[in-house]
Amino acid sequence: MTAAPLRLHPDRLFPADPDTRAVARRLYAEVVDLPIVSPHGHTDPRWFAEDAPFGDASSLLLQPDHYVFRMLYSQGVPLEAIGIGAPVDPRAAWRVLADHYHLFRGTPSRLWLDWVFHSVFGLDVRLAPETADLYFDSINEQLARPEFRPRALFDRFNIELLATTESPLDSLDHHAMIRASGWKGRVITAFRPDPVVDPDYEGFADNLDRLGAMTGEDVGSYAGYLAALRARRAAFAAAGATSTDHGHPTAATADLDRGEAERLYAQVRGGRATAEQAELFRAHMLTVMAGMSIDDGLVMQIHPGSFRNHNTELFRRFGRDKGADIPTRTDFVRALRPLLGRFGNDPRLSLILFTLDESAYARELAPLAGHYPALKLGPAWWFHDSPEGMRRFRRQTTETAGFHNLVGFNDDTRAFLSIPARHDVARRIDCGYLAELVVEHQLDEDEAVDLAVDLTCRLVKSAYRL
Amino acid sequence: MTAAPLRLHPDRLFPADPDTRAVARRLYAEVVDLPIVSPHGHTDPRWFAEDAPFGDASSLLLQPDHYVFRMLYSQGVPLEAIGIGAPVDPRAAWRVLADHYHLFRGTPSRLWLDWVFHSVFGLDVRLAPETADLYFDSINEQLARPEFRPRALFDRFNIELLATTESPLDSLDHHAMIRASGWKGRVITAFRPDPVVDPDYEGFADNLDRLGAMTGEDVGSYAGYLAALRARRAAFAAAGATSTDHGHPTAATADLDRGEAERLYAQVRGGRATAEQAELFRAHMLTVMAGMSIDDGLVMQIHPGSFRNHNTELFRRFGRDKGADIPTRTDFVRALRPLLGRFGNDPRLSLILFTLDESAYARELAPLAGHYPALKLGPAWWFHDSPEGMRRFRRQTTETAGFHNLVGFNDDTRAFLSIPARHDVARRIDCGYLAELVVEHQLDEDEAVDLAVDLTCRLVKSAYRL
Amino acid sequence: MTAAPLRLHPDRLFPADPDTRAVARRLYAEVVDLPIVSPHGHTDPRWFAEDAPFGDASSLLLQPDHYVFRMLYSQGVPLEAIGIGAPVDPRAAWRVLADHYHLFRGTPSRLWLDWVFHSVFGLDVRLAPETADLYFDSINEQLARPEFRPRALFDRFNIELLATTESPLDSLDHHAMIRASGWKGRVITAFRPDPVVDPDYEGFADNLDRLGAMTGEDVGSYAGYLAALRARRAAFAAAGATSTDHGHPTAATADLDRGEAERLYAQVRGGRATAEQAELFRAHMLTVMAGMSIDDGLVMQIHPGSFRNHNTELFRRFGRDKGADIPTRTDFVRALRPLLGRFGNDPRLSLILFTLDESAYARELAPLAGHYPALKLGPAWWFHDSPEGMRRFRRQTTETAGFHNLVGFNDDTRAFLSIPARHDVARRIDCGYLAELVVEHQLDEDEAVDLAVDLTCRLVKSAYRL
Repeated sequence: MTAAPLRLHPDRLFPADPDTRAVARRLYAEVVDLPIVSPHGHTDPRWFAEDAPFGDASSLLLQPDHYVFRMLYSQGVPLEAIGIGAPVDPRAAWRVLADHYHLFRGTPSRLWLDWVFHSVFGLDVRLAPETADLYFDSINEQLARPEFRPRALFDRFNIELLATTESPLDSLDHHAMIRASGWKGRVITAFRPDPVVDPDYEGFADNLDRLGAMTGEDVGSYAGYLAALRARRAAFAAAGATSTDHGHPTAATADLDRGEAERLYAQVRGGRATAEQAELFRAHMLTVMAGMSIDDGLVMQIHPGSFRNHNTELFRRFGRDKGADIPTRTDFVRALRPLLGRFGNDPRLSLILFTLDESAYARELAPLAGHYPALKLGPAWWFHDSPEGMRRFRRQTTETAGFHNLVGFNDDTRAFLSIPARHDVARRIDCGYLAELVVEHQLDEDEAVDLAVDLTCRLVKSAYRL
Repeated sequence: MTAAPLRLHPDRLFPADPDTRAVARRLYAEVVDLPIVSPHGHTDPRWFAEDAPFGDASSLLLQPDHYVFRMLYSQGVPLEAIGIGAPVDPRAAWRVLADHYHLFRGTPSRLWLDWVFHSVFGLDVRLAPETADLYFDSINEQLARPEFRPRALFDRFNIELLATTESPLDSLDHHAMIRASGWKGRVITAFRPDPVVDPDYEGFADNLDRLGAMTGEDVGSYAGYLAALRARRAAFAAAGATSTDHGHPTAATADLDRGEAERLYAQVRGGRATAEQAELFRAHMLTVMAGMSIDDGLVMQIHPGSFRNHNTELFRRFGRDKGADIPTRTDFVRALRPLLGRFGNDPRLSLILFTLDESAYARELAPLAGHYPALKLGPAWWFHDSPEGMRRFRRQTTETAGFHNLVGFNDDTRAFLSIPARHDVARRIDCGYLAELVVEHQLDEDEAVDLAVDLTCRLVKSAYRL
Repeated sequence: MTAAPLRLHPDRLFPADPDTRAVARRLYAEVVDLPIVSPHGHTDPRWFAEDAPFGDASSLLLQPDHYVFRMLYSQGVPLEAIGIGAPVDPRAAWRVLADHYHLFRGTPSRLWLDWVFHSVFGLDVRLAPETADLYFDSINEQLARPEFRPRALFDRFNIELLATTESPLDSLDHHAMIRASGWKGRVITAFRPDPVVDPDYEGFADNLDRLGAMTGEDVGSYAGYLAALRARRAAFAAAGATSTDHGHPTAATADLDRGEAERLYAQVRGGRATAEQAELFRAHMLTVMAGMSIDDGLVMQIHPGSFRNHNTELFRRFGRDKGADIPTRTDFVRALRPLLGRFGNDPRLSLILFTLDESAYARELAPLAGHYPALKLGPAWWFHDSPEGMRRFRRQTTETAGFHNLVGFNDDTRAFLSIPARHDVARRIDCGYLAELVVEHQLDEDEAVDLAVDLTCRLVKSAYRL
């Protein structure tokens, strides 16, 4: 059997209608060469600090990608077979992926991986059982070359800015190394305080102790705790951060008075908080963080609504981030009211809200963002960062929120090699959406060009203060 | 810089596919000249009673339009800058709109405003900073002419019937003036009893006193209260009303026995009702109103699910209806059961239900309307009264409810000049939807023509008993 | 007036865009002649056991079809007028349908009925008041012929397998008759234990007694109850069943310890269970049933989320299944966790999940199915088994779950004559969806062909272990 060809069609993801496709092509031509601005993601700053070669195909493209291994797992592949939780021959792991590559038909993983295979590694046959070794050998051979090191790829990918995400307990040493290295690539951090704000986070009490030690503040008191957080925010800002990020189970916010907050902190700090108190503390701290954002100018992101580690047995055996985080229904209207009541009318605050609950797009989020000066909507997130997911986002938010209460695209990924593919998917879907508005005569084409550039970079830079 | 042209393309909002578009054009040709029947809206009957000229562009098109000013506010424009809560030079306010007109790209406000600018005022360049004064001067000059007075526009717009909405405490004097004037335009009222049915309404106790005074009934007793409501319903019917309208925070209904109802009324009347009792009273009164509708034949509308005045500070400074009403998740299946259990099988009742929670379209509302004889679904409402919103409504309700459990279009607007634009958008979207069914061979074209006329006027008139 | 023609266009339900339609045609050509595999439905095994002629048009096509009569009822037609709850002249009933056939425009019932009229009965004019008698006479005349008996139609319809659904209390005699008859048609049963698992089921206590009597087990004890269920599962498996089916009001599952379960069973058995205890018992029994499935290999289906008999008066007058079952919002993430925590990682379990709450497709169900090895998603169900409903299902599940965590199509019907039409609609919609992926260059056409066959039969057979 001859291997099927792997091609990336120049019209991929554009609407089928020929007139609309022609407009989409013209719009896309205006943005295809614009640099990538990636204001939120999870790549490892060590890569750019040390600039060491990446390892093999499996450790780079398979084992860290929870989109990929959860799909294999859902179809009965043990995680150990691909080297998670157990050592494995990387070639054998790669063959497992190749044997199951048909599972990814119709998924965004397929789009991203095919782009990496073809555009980064020059492969021109489809991944399949009979091409597994060709892929594995070719990718590994190329990864050993200087032009495939992290910084070289960063430059080749035309990345203007890349934000990583770190815990307040991170030393930010890798970011310091990057800045000290003389390399021109702009890699900045973002402040993700969950380990020291969420009482249910693993090791919360120890994390507070470390926070105190790092900052010299007395985290035994609420005042010291707040001072420690302010100190770390300042350190992050000094390392280039322009944003914070908050990954709470719900969107609940609260605005406690000082006495209540102090008493609640004492409970939480002492490890005696009930589930309700833990939730209330997280809720209160979102409002506190919004206040600190007004002071120090850091843009605030909230990523709520994921039920983490739904699969208890898997969590016990393999730990966090193993594909068992499941979205839940999320209320925003009542949940955000305390924070918005305090700071929602303050244009100094830039609060970017994400959701995994698409039913809130048109019902809650677009109306909120289309009213409150402080509020903007982040792009389609995680499971919804896909062609259809992005289309639903555009169609369900634009008519109420307009384009200017949105913030362009986030890749939100740890899969560095797929970053250009992800931005390319977003640009293509956006140009297709705008082309539809043009062909339906809702917009003139000059306006659509303007909006395509807005969505690709101008809105990103303004919303994230880059 | 040359101003961009403003054109209204004859094919706007039709599907892109050429075959489908051709069918949509033919269907639209059958309905484009049909008169406007507007069975629910919020225009001011004083306009038609007094027939005075409208003021300037800003006071007519900008300051009363909460779709428009909430978008400006969301992007940091103070409401005072456009004359809300503070005096402003109308020209300066208009320039603010012109400076921010790009915010409306992709929104229905843009469609409606462009139609008004072009079709009512003959403007043929796009609104932009450099055309702000041209617009302001031209619109104001035209508004001063006799052919731009309310009654002249009513006739020019080919309006067959226009319903306004009044409180039971309204004297209906403007409607009486209209009828007495000899003018042929048909402007009717609708009975909106929230001020005397919702214990949380501002001034509820005073409103009850006024209700008693207007009707000569003793509203100290539940029996007197019901008699007063019946009297006002009769007065509204005599003034042409064919419908009532109920704007409750939820869709909860209840069916209390007489003793419970009397005791609850006493609590509510005395201002001692808890939040739960207030909700129960509203719930009970919906069922009571359904019973009165069976007696007096008034069609009943329920508009539930808006969280009013979400932004406390804005409400405090500027009052109601300032763009901070946010939709909430709404349950219908359990909420409506008491009312439907009492009257749902009675075909004498025509109960028209609206929602701001689109997730209920296919799950709850279409199945309920596709079963209960008394129930019909109102069109896509408020935030969802937009091209994509209307498409979602059609696609998510028709397959289960069919077309005949729907009621055609409502404009639901206080923006009088935009009424033809709103009906035109609805007709175009409906014709596009029907054209898709024809091109997919789900309908023959003669059936689609029939349905286009149904949706434009026949279903409206039968559902609203016009 | 000349009757309108009734045609079934060869391109019906394919996307309008000509290129996409051409691909859809080619894909459909690959699956149009494949036999029907119907793994879940509600036809009557007596038909195939006795092979008696069907009655008249009204008793075959109108009176048993709750999609059809609920629509008539919603528009004011009394059920008695079509012979439900009262005797009626079948011709008069048929004329009622003909008089109201326009109500079904845009609904799937119209697609299914037109297919039956044209493809089964050769009618070539549209059903309308003036063709009512022609239809009634022609259909009745044909039904009397041998080639319209159940087995002949089964063969003509190219059905490879048809599953019915029976209560554990069913003797399965008709299935035994079918097997003993020498007829080659494969008709199997499925185990639906609601009458003996749901404490709120009509006659639950009596049902338990009958269960004990049938199996010789002592259902006075929990152990005996479980043994009786195991015995009936074994009897169903012996009669060809490969699956169970569970129709619970919610998706709640629980995993009680033995002592708790025994105590709860005693409450339930004694008729003393509260609503909460009844729900907990149902929840627990789902987990018990999953465990039994691992033992005996029966595939498990859950159909949750229907509020049964919403219309109390109608239920009192006419009984179950009269069109008043309404979908409700359904939580899956928390509800399924006990069952999935116990068995979700076990690939021996095949748990097929359905929903009436489409908002859970992308948010909850696709992420769960895209992770847990035991879990698969059933197709768009009931109200959503329609062209738009199927499209929403594909677009909202595929990108996260892929195609291989789905199970192809179910017709889920008691309307035997419509089975080919229902499968044809599914095949057409699937081919249209796949064609869109091809034209957007997300899939190559060879892959789309492969997937079209997967969705039509391969995934069905593997998921249902046929």
